[in-house]
Amino acid sequence: MYLIGERINGMFDDIKKAVQEKDETVIKRWVEEQVKEGADALDVNAGPSSDKPMEAMEWLVTTVRKHTDITLAIDTTKTDVMERGLELAGVGKGIINSANGEPQKLAKLLELAKKYRAKVIGLTMNEKGIPKDASQRVEIAAQIITSAADAGIPSDDLFIDAVILPANVAQEHAVEVLETISQIKMLCDPPCRAVLGLSNVSQKCNNRPLINKVYLVMAIARGLDAAIVDVCDRDLVDSAITAELLLNKQIYCDNYCEAYRKK
Amino acid sequence: MYLIGERINGMFDDIKKAVQEKDETVIKRWVEEQVKEGADALDVNAGPSSDKPMEAMEWLVTTVRKHTDITLAIDTTKTDVMERGLELAGVGKGIINSANGEPQKLAKLLELAKKYRAKVIGLTMNEKGIPKDASQRVEIAAQIITSAADAGIPSDDLFIDAVILPANVAQEHAVEVLETISQIKMLCDPPCRAVLGLSNVSQKCNNRPLINKVYLVMAIARGLDAAIVDVCDRDLVDSAITAELLLNKQIYCDNYCEAYRKK
Repeated sequence: MYLIGERINGMFDDIKKAVQEKDETVIKRWVEEQVKEGADALDVNAGPSSDKPMEAMEWLVTTVRKHTDITLAIDTTKTDVMERGLELAGVGKGIINSANGEPQKLAKLLELAKKYRAKVIGLTMNEKGIPKDASQRVEIAAQIITSAADAGIPSDDLFIDAVILPANVAQEHAVEVLETISQIKMLCDPPCRAVLGLSNVSQKCNNRPLINKVYLVMAIARGLDAAIVDVCDRDLVDSAITAELLLNKQIYCDNYCEAYRKK
Repeated sequence: MYLIGERINGMFDDIKKAVQEKDETVIKRWVEEQVKEGADALDVNAGPSSDKPMEAMEWLVTTVRKHTDITLAIDTTKTDVMERGLELAGVGKGIINSANGEPQKLAKLLELAKKYRAKVIGLTMNEKGIPKDASQRVEIAAQIITSAADAGIPSDDLFIDAVILPANVAQEHAVEVLETISQIKMLCDPPCRAVLGLSNVSQKCNNRPLINKVYLVMAIARGLDAAIVDVCDRDLVDSAITAELLLNKQIYCDNYCEAYRKK
């Protein structure tokens, strides 16, 4: 399971404040904490409210890079900010978070992916929004996969995110997303990877940890390879490790969770 | 989710002792506890060590029936004990646990199912044992489904159990069982139901509750409808409820777990 730590995101108040006040200690703590808990990559998002998005991203990526050299998922909707983020993350050390099915923007982001040897997260949505059913999500995924292949992106570097919505307002989407995951794994060979921005499934729900955990396990059972998650939620990560064990992707030993963490 | 409480089984020491000493209080407690926790049916197994299996089953079913009228899964390998158990459980109130692909025994048990309007659990195994891969499990399932249809058993009354083995000794089976579950749901229309004797997956493993919970959720994501489980494990049952919520089978409300239990 490829785990992307979600925590360095301006949607969280402490990060928002740290970005505003250029407080490096908060960022350092979240880098270290998430890396310690086994993150394979870290999401980096300066937050929607920043009025100087370029400056905020520059400061944030530079600060993160002082403490880790793992892959960074540059999380912004602005193409110029994305490029600067990828540059500072380093060639071969970035993920574009995210592209979607909108053709012009996708083409531009795939160029950046090529230039910085970055992985790409492609959302199954486009200028018309997020489709309700699996078949239309898969259609957009197929367009992204084709464009990425044409641009020379290795399929292993392409992550398709089927875009999960909160269960309390869009309950009917969850099952469509699961169906999308199993279908996109069959669209090309070797397959692209399936990723989810998980926490959105439980946005403003009661029982958030339970809903996150159960949905992650269900998605893994349908073919999920990667997720943007709270890697510090040990219950969640233990569930993911156990799910992969039961898919025969990890070897059983009595202390398989600890063994996985020490890998 | 159709939940069959596993606890009245002579494999547990307290039940074994209660059967030997004809101690009704232990049985009464487990009936009440499991029914309170929302069991749709109760498994009834007098244990492998009983030297008078007929007498033990008679006493056990009669004792259970004093305290509940819910469906009872008569759990024995002996056909004559099965018939007596079904008779005491009552017409339309029993489940045969279990038949398998062995033709002669299957035919006899399907006759009993017809006579007592009992549901049937059919294991995907036969005289040759438990197949390792999904395709052979599905082949046996298809034979059971055909025989049951010929015998006039409604497909909704037929539960196929793909036979999960402990993860620590037969890890490679778990993914085959998941694949079997999704395939058997497509074998006939209306489909038969998919069931699992869940706890076996974690037999003699560390982390039993975690493995049980994760595997149950994975199986639900692949189409599982029913399970023989520890219904008193609230974490487990909450996970199952949440999985069904995310498959859009339960309506979301903030306290959906409580709402489900009060149904």
